[in-house]
Amino acid sequence: MSPKRAISPFALRGTVFTASNAHQLHCIENALVCVDENGVITAVLHQDDTGYSQACQHYQLQGQLTVLEPGQYVLPGFVDLHVHAPQWPQTGKALDLPLNEWLQDNTFPLEARYADIDFARQVYLSLVDTLLANGTTTAMYFATLHDRSSLELARICLEKGQRALVGRVAMDNPDQCPDYYRDESATAAIEATARFIDDVYQLPGNTLRRVRPVITPRFIPSCTDELLTGLGALARRSGCHVQTHCSESDWEHQYVQQRHHKNDTQALNDFGLITRKTVLAHANFLNDEDMDTLKAAGAGVAHCPLSNFYFSNAVFPLRKALERHLHVGLGSDLSGGHSPSMFDSCRHAITASNALHDGVDPAIQAASRGNGSAKIDFRQAFWLATGGGGEALDLPIGQIKTGYAFDALMLDCRATEGNVVIWPELDSSPDILQKIIYNAARSNIIRTWVQGELVFSR
Amino acid sequence: MSPKRAISPFALRGTVFTASNAHQLHCIENALVCVDENGVITAVLHQDDTGYSQACQHYQLQGQLTVLEPGQYVLPGFVDLHVHAPQWPQTGKALDLPLNEWLQDNTFPLEARYADIDFARQVYLSLVDTLLANGTTTAMYFATLHDRSSLELARICLEKGQRALVGRVAMDNPDQCPDYYRDESATAAIEATARFIDDVYQLPGNTLRRVRPVITPRFIPSCTDELLTGLGALARRSGCHVQTHCSESDWEHQYVQQRHHKNDTQALNDFGLITRKTVLAHANFLNDEDMDTLKAAGAGVAHCPLSNFYFSNAVFPLRKALERHLHVGLGSDLSGGHSPSMFDSCRHAITASNALHDGVDPAIQAASRGNGSAKIDFRQAFWLATGGGGEALDLPIGQIKTGYAFDALMLDCRATEGNVVIWPELDSSPDILQKIIYNAARSNIIRTWVQGELVFSR
Ligand SMILES: [Zn+2]
Ligand SMILES: [Zn+2]
Repeated sequence: MSPKRAISPFALRGTVFTASNAHQLHCIENALVCVDENGVITAVLHQDDTGYSQACQHYQLQGQLTVLEPGQYVLPGFVDLHVHAPQWPQTGKALDLPLNEWLQDNTFPLEARYADIDFARQVYLSLVDTLLANGTTTAMYFATLHDRSSLELARICLEKGQRALVGRVAMDNPDQCPDYYRDESATAAIEATARFIDDVYQLPGNTLRRVRPVITPRFIPSCTDELLTGLGALARRSGCHVQTHCSESDWEHQYVQQRHHKNDTQALNDFGLITRKTVLAHANFLNDEDMDTLKAAGAGVAHCPLSNFYFSNAVFPLRKALERHLHVGLGSDLSGGHSPSMFDSCRHAITASNALHDGVDPAIQAASRGNGSAKIDFRQAFWLATGGGGEALDLPIGQIKTGYAFDALMLDCRATEGNVVIWPELDSSPDILQKIIYNAARSNIIRTWVQGELVFSR
Repeated sequence: MSPKRAISPFALRGTVFTASNAHQLHCIENALVCVDENGVITAVLHQDDTGYSQACQHYQLQGQLTVLEPGQYVLPGFVDLHVHAPQWPQTGKALDLPLNEWLQDNTFPLEARYADIDFARQVYLSLVDTLLANGTTTAMYFATLHDRSSLELARICLEKGQRALVGRVAMDNPDQCPDYYRDESATAAIEATARFIDDVYQLPGNTLRRVRPVITPRFIPSCTDELLTGLGALARRSGCHVQTHCSESDWEHQYVQQRHHKNDTQALNDFGLITRKTVLAHANFLNDEDMDTLKAAGAGVAHCPLSNFYFSNAVFPLRKALERHLHVGLGSDLSGGHSPSMFDSCRHAITASNALHDGVDPAIQAASRGNGSAKIDFRQAFWLATGGGGEALDLPIGQIKTGYAFDALMLDCRATEGNVVIWPELDSSPDILQKIIYNAARSNIIRTWVQGELVFSR
């Protein structure tokens, strides 16, 4: 069954929070957001704009106006740039293990199970439902190396209405991948990736490319040079998005240095894998030259602050990347990160930046403890989780802005299961957004839309 | 109206998670927890214990048995060792400001408002309700220097049934406190504290000392030597709990060094303020001698990992303190910490320990980046948030154990608003607890008991 994508035009009136870059936050009280039958935002009117009252009346007369109640707010939907879909059952566990045990004894055996498409379907349905309920309107997924179940993930996203970028993982290096979970050869992995691209585009109902294929070498250690070269050529030929891990941990960064005598970014660039549509997960150990390379290509970084604290041995130098105008968004990194909520990614992005700024070890003198130039605040975190992610993907999403897709969520801070407590006489609009970023939970999200289509409501 | 405290005996049958120290986690499937009419746990039976079946039958025949459904779990209630009650309206905001602005322009003016008892009542009702809904069965509060509204906080805790330790804050140093928010003199502050102790003990219905007074010098900088000396004498005379801030940040630690030529811990000890019933918030810059002093006295530390990342310039050396067998629990540090949920404190305790262990700055070589001996995991975090807090307070709480008060919560992981997803065929009992620690939210808490009394349910 092909999903219904047709909607009627509508408008929402109420307070809108949206960011147009890392430093420009807009809190628009009593805004009117107009959405057309294609799910595209046609206007965001302020209450003193000419035409505001007429537009309100027009939508009201048509029965197409929703007026938000006090305590309700509209935000752009979240863009999660890094999710390992098959690791969903493992979310929030095994984080007490060292990386090697985590990967070899837990993660690879779990991912290998997705040869079983029934298991895959059960997990992926649960994951996509969970992410939509958490306000993630766009997710960039690593699936597994299984063709059928990777395509099933794309199909489920389409069925549920989530905007998604899905990668069938390629990994053929026998030195680094277990026998039971590895592509047969570079050629086989390249061909399977090419087929996967076609299959995703041809999914019934995917005419608007709600779901897109992604060329996905797991990371350099998992892939032979032949595979990386072939996927680079495919990226050029197909124009598809690319995702991989980059300079994630000391071990991985050193591995690439030894194999290629250069940083991940340069090696990936030489393979043709750094493009405007590339998203690199982590990128913690980027040097200045690497940042220049990404900037020149317009490539993006998926900053994954939750997993930085577990498996990366360091924190991504976010503020430096923002000051150099790199494209950066946030990734939950399920299940290296423990939470499916992008609110948690926002909070940890701030925490991680503070840790880098101030340092953490009281045994070190204050003057040399932190780098002193890394702090970000809720404004940047909010941008990263919304518009920053959209920019990294080169898609018109993540902002409540004319011409953008209406990918959005409605929050209700009066939810009795929530910890966002607003004191109207004490809290300004930016205060309210800060409180939302710090304490909103899944229970505060009452509606989620993708391309104007209601994909979740409570 | 004096609250009803009388209950009928009852028993719960289901999976219990409890820790008896930082390294001993108990996951007891199908346990029978028996609670008497005083709210004390009289037995925790395993299903193969003799008498288990008879006991189940006995409670069932009396209509006093609750059998947990699959997906439901019983945990000890949380002990939050550090809460600034008057800062509740500010929770989750102003965290983008430097400490000085946060304190002088936001926090002190807000705290000064509690001269208005109606405002105080409104805030404190909201706070206590929120904490109970989040499973915090015991909270150690800083109130303000206002006698009436501080007592009102104690009264509200009693009315709502929360176990609480409440301090009327003492702060008389004109060099560090604003004119509009300062005790008139050391003598006045000492007398007010002594009166407050009596008033709390005499609150109607407080016969079992559900609510206890706490001697509360804000921190050394806010207090004159005369005040600290007087409060130390009062601590000895009264046997009451003591709380204050200790070696929180570079600025504060240096201030005490300059004024007293010693660390906070030694200065507080000389004032008679380090006792078995003392809880020191933060304590980030403790040296070995300080740890020895605390260990000798049996004093406790309220580790506040959320605010460590914002206002402390460093992370408390938790694992070192645990290895030296100090009494340590967790504090949310509302509103220097952003979340009323002790689950968040647990998560950040782990994150902070990982940051200290691995370091955070990728520009520093791996070998010298972290201290390499700081990691804790969910087991220690769970202990700290429950039994560790109870131990720090010298109260029989925080464990599901015979002789302890039944301060507990029931979790339901099937809650549709929650992100804890259990896969029965994949998750062991410890895995389930780890998933709870990492992803449970307020919406997963369906009942909260204090001393056997149901104080929250949904
Ligand atoms: Zn990853
Ligand atoms: Zn404090």
